[in-house]
Formats: sequence, structure tokens, C-alpha cells
Amino acid sequence: MVGDDMVLLDMLIREKGFISGEAIAERLKVSRTAVWKKIKTLRGQGFHIESQPNLGYCLISCPDKLLPVFIKRELKTDFIGQEVYYYPVTTSTNVLAKELASQGAREGTLVIAEEQTQGRGRMGREWLSPANKNILISLILRPHLSPIQVSYITMIASLSVVKTIEALTPLESSIKWPNDIMIRGNKVGGILTEFSAEQDQVVYVVVGIGVNMNFDPTIYPEIAYSATSIYLELGQEISRLKFLVGLLQEMEKEYKELQAGKGLLIVKEWRNSLMTLNKEVRVVSEQGTLEGMAEDVDEHGALILRLASGQQIKIYTGDVSLQMNKA
Amino acid sequence: MVGDDMVLLDMLIREKGFISGEAIAERLKVSRTAVWKKIKTLRGQGFHIESQPNLGYCLISCPDKLLPVFIKRELKTDFIGQEVYYYPVTTSTNVLAKELASQGAREGTLVIAEEQTQGRGRMGREWLSPANKNILISLILRPHLSPIQVSYITMIASLSVVKTIEALTPLESSIKWPNDIMIRGNKVGGILTEFSAEQDQVVYVVVGIGVNMNFDPTIYPEIAYSATSIYLELGQEISRLKFLVGLLQEMEKEYKELQAGKGLLIVKEWRNSLMTLNKEVRVVSEQGTLEGMAEDVDEHGALILRLASGQQIKIYTGDVSLQMNKA
Repeated sequence: MVGDDMVLLDMLIREKGFISGEAIAERLKVSRTAVWKKIKTLRGQGFHIESQPNLGYCLISCPDKLLPVFIKRELKTDFIGQEVYYYPVTTSTNVLAKELASQGAREGTLVIAEEQTQGRGRMGREWLSPANKNILISLILRPHLSPIQVSYITMIASLSVVKTIEALTPLESSIKWPNDIMIRGNKVGGILTEFSAEQDQVVYVVVGIGVNMNFDPTIYPEIAYSATSIYLELGQEISRLKFLVGLLQEMEKEYKELQAGKGLLIVKEWRNSLMTLNKEVRVVSEQGTLEGMAEDVDEHGALILRLASGQQIKIYTGDVSLQMNKA
Repeated sequence: MVGDDMVLLDMLIREKGFISGEAIAERLKVSRTAVWKKIKTLRGQGFHIESQPNLGYCLISCPDKLLPVFIKRELKTDFIGQEVYYYPVTTSTNVLAKELASQGAREGTLVIAEEQTQGRGRMGREWLSPANKNILISLILRPHLSPIQVSYITMIASLSVVKTIEALTPLESSIKWPNDIMIRGNKVGGILTEFSAEQDQVVYVVVGIGVNMNFDPTIYPEIAYSATSIYLELGQEISRLKFLVGLLQEMEKEYKELQAGKGLLIVKEWRNSLMTLNKEVRVVSEQGTLEGMAEDVDEHGALILRLASGQQIKIYTGDVSLQMNKA
């Protein structure tokens, strides 16, 4: 939906009552039949629009969807989210975004789904989300980074989620190494970063962000005790659109800082948002299970673990759980 | 070309003179017409096969091409090169291999081109090669590596080229950091490693290998003073097929060692083949031009440079040239 359609929607939203087809036709410089066709398109997208022979059209309600037309009305960014691919239902926004990126899609391109049939978390795990309830997006970025620095992108994505929660709600969230967003010990969001690179230069990064918004995870037995949502924590629904716009604006701000060479400041800020440090943790990785004190992270985000033997090791990938009995 | 076609070619190669169409039909359990069609296919691929009404068929010469049928006859590997995509001419073997890999092609899949219309080196540079003269291949690998370890793949590819040159010729070659193969100061081959990854796990690596074989680079002004070839150094042509088979077998051996956890041994061996160390070098990188002593490489292959100020810095990407006046 672009140009004319957005102007039409703007008119309908601003007008509190009915607006005549004639007035619309005049403003858009199109025929009355063309106006009627545009109204039909909007209705198809879930807009409830009444029509009366002598009065014209009146917008009764907007669909609870993250339509590009809504985003464009609100978003103040230079490039992130300026190009939007919107899907009521798709396999996985990351899969689509990777295809678009390899075909040359420009930096900042946003892929949104209301529902995913093959939503994934890290390590190929399922990411559960009913339709029209949460935020399921992927962003295409083309940073000047070496592959070793791609973790910066995961860091700014998770920081942006934390900051957006902080800006729009009274909730406190933190980051569980390496890429989960947590509220009171339960998972409210996650980041899935995938990328394509040459030996020493990233070609593109696709960063997938999932945030549980107006969704009740307690009705799904498989995640009832590990997941939460903004709705569940707050006791009320909040505007997904407002959250998404805030998140994208925050992402752009952080990304610009990263590209301006402030990577180490970002690591520091990310480190301060980690709930994982100075705690006894258990790490399950391909190399096996390790237990120890999570002492720090290095400049690329690797976890520095102190084993009971006193030995210090770096962990690049794995699942962390806190050892609550020792904490 | 598989199954029947390979058996037919085997029969023609073993038979010193003519072999009757009847004998072939009997062996392959097909009709005489089917035999004639297979002969036609071979001719289309450049095999010169004579036919005489009462004698049958006689193989006069084979095309000077790296046909899969030739490779399969010689290659002793478990997976590298067991699946082959062969193109007389294509855009770029790395581009094709990335497409195949993202569609699920299995580990070890080999893409061969006799000629590339968009051959590339690192950083998007052109890779010049006339048809049917050199080795232009890409391999698809699916190693258990984190993105930070992908340099191992470049290392085993360059080591394999050096070892194959050593095994088949009296020539001495060495590696110019990070990915060029050199003979007497000129470039004889290069590696272009590209990969797709999640944050902490490689999904696939495509390693492109180009080696100048039976080619005279001195007739191309743009590379006359920087490139060389096996032919130019040796004064005679050598079998591209033999070289390719040796290279693939060496690659598989090194790759198995890497996956068995011998990465650090590979770095050590690669380091010993580097011509770049303990020399005054100039490095041109995105960060600008730096001069200093190339003291060492780290465990991921990054170059450790000692500046005139005494400061030690690590370089992950760049072009190195030796400062011959100081060497």
C-alpha cells in the first residue's frame, strides 16, 4: 500500500465522520470508481469502512495488524524499515530476508510476519507464536564488519528490545547470554542472527527479532513455565505498532553508533544488561556440559567461565542456565 | 555422465582398436540405436570417436577437459568431489556453489568451470582465466566450526594447493598472507572463501580455488608482471586432471584432520608455508596503509604486525606487499 492508498487512509483516519466519495476522488485526482476500488482493497486488509449512499465513507475500525501503511505513518528513520515486506503468514521471516538479501535488497529492509509456519530460534528450535499477537520481524543489514564482529549485531538487537520495553512499559528486562530477552526469569524475546560473508568481510546480516507481546504463553504447555509476554507481565495489552516503531528507531540509533566505531561502548552497555554475570551457571554446548562462574564476556561477546578447577575458558556458543541452588 | 556412459567410455579407452556396436549393446544391455545415441553424446562432449560400418567404434582422442567421467575414474575420496557439477562456461563457480549449498547440496559437492564470465578474487576483484587452461573449482563444505574458525578452511585449501604442486612438480610454492599461492614472487593461485552462518555456527562454506596451470599470463598486460602459472614456471604443460584429483584428495585428508580437532596443527603447518613472516611488509586495508614487521599469525590466522613505534597490532583483512627495499 503506497501513495494514493496512504493518502486515502489518512483522510479516513482524520475525518471523524463520513467523507464523500466526491471529495476523495477530487483529492486523489481519480474517478469515483477508482475510489470505490481502493475502499474495497482496504476492506480486504481488515479495515472496517461503512458506506452510505449520500454520505460517503466512514472508517469504523482498523485491523490489529502491523501493516506497512501504519508503520510508514509513524516511523522516523533514515533507512531501517523504510522498505517493508509484509506477510499475514509466512514460513520464517529470516528465510525470506536471506532470499531478499542475496537478491540485493537494500540495507534496512524489514520483513514482517503476523504468523510463521516455520518460526525458528537458535540451533533450529521452534519459535511458537499465534497470529497477530507478537512481533516477528527480520532486518537486512550490510555492515562494514568482519565475521568475528557479527555478534555486535546481536548485541544491538537485544539492547534495542530491552530499551524499547523500558521506554514503553514500567517493566524491567535483561539479557541472558547470548541472545535471550528475559523478564523475571522468563523469556520474552529472542534474537536469531544469520549472515553471509567472505573470509574477512560480511556481505549481509539478517537479524530476526521475536518479542512476545499480546500473547498468553501459559496456555501452551511446552513453554508455559519458561516464556512470558509483555501482556502477561503488565496485565494489559499494548500497541504492537508503537512497540515496533520504537524498536526500529532504537535499532537505527544503535546501528549508526556501531558503524561510527563505537563497538566497544556497545559491548560495555550490553554487558551491563546481562543477567548472566557473576553467577554460577551451567552451559550446555556441543563440547558437553560445563559448570562454573560466569565471570565476564570478551570484546566479541564470548562468555568467560571460571571452572571449579580454577581454569578459565571462553565459550562461543551454548545454552546457559543459572544454578539457582548456588546463586 | 553416469553409469552406462562411463562403462561405454571405459570400454572405448581400454580397447586399443575398434569395438563393435554389437559388443557394446550386449555389455550395456541396450539396443544398437541406444549405443549410437550414447556415442553421439560423447562426441558432443569433445571425444573424437571414429565409426566404420563393419568394425564399430574407435576412440581417437579425449577432450582436454575436466569432465566428471574422467574425475570419477581417478578420484579416491569418501565425499570430496563425489558429486560434481560441470560447466564448460559459467558466471562464477562460487556463485553457483552458494546457490547449490543453500538448496541443500551435500558436503563435498564440487563445481567445476572450464571458463568463468564473472570470475572473482577476494574483495570483488576479477579473476582472469582463458577457457580449458586452468583449474577453477568451488567446493561445498559443512564443517562443525564457528564463524571465527572459517579461516581454517582457507588454510587447508591453500596448503592443499602447495602440497599438490610439490607432489606433482619440482616447483616450490609458498603462501602469501592471507590466501595467495606464490611461486618465485608471482601469484599462481588464490582462494576465495565465502560462507553462510548463524551467530555461532557455520551452515556452509564455499571455498573457491583457482590455479593457473597451462596458461601463459604474460600475454595479458594487466597481470603479466604479477601472475605466473605451472606451465610458465615448468616450461611444459601438465595434466590438469591429475592435478585436480591430487588436490581433491589432499583437501579431503586435511579436512578430516581439521574435523578431528587438529586445527592448531593446521595453523602451524600453514604458518610454516607462509612467505610473509619476518619481513617488512606494507598492508593496505580498509583502515588505511600500515607498514611494519610481519611477526606472526594468531590461532585464527590474523597477521600480527609490529609497527615502527613498537606497537603490535592484529590485522584481520588486507593486502600485503613485501617492502623489498628493506627485506
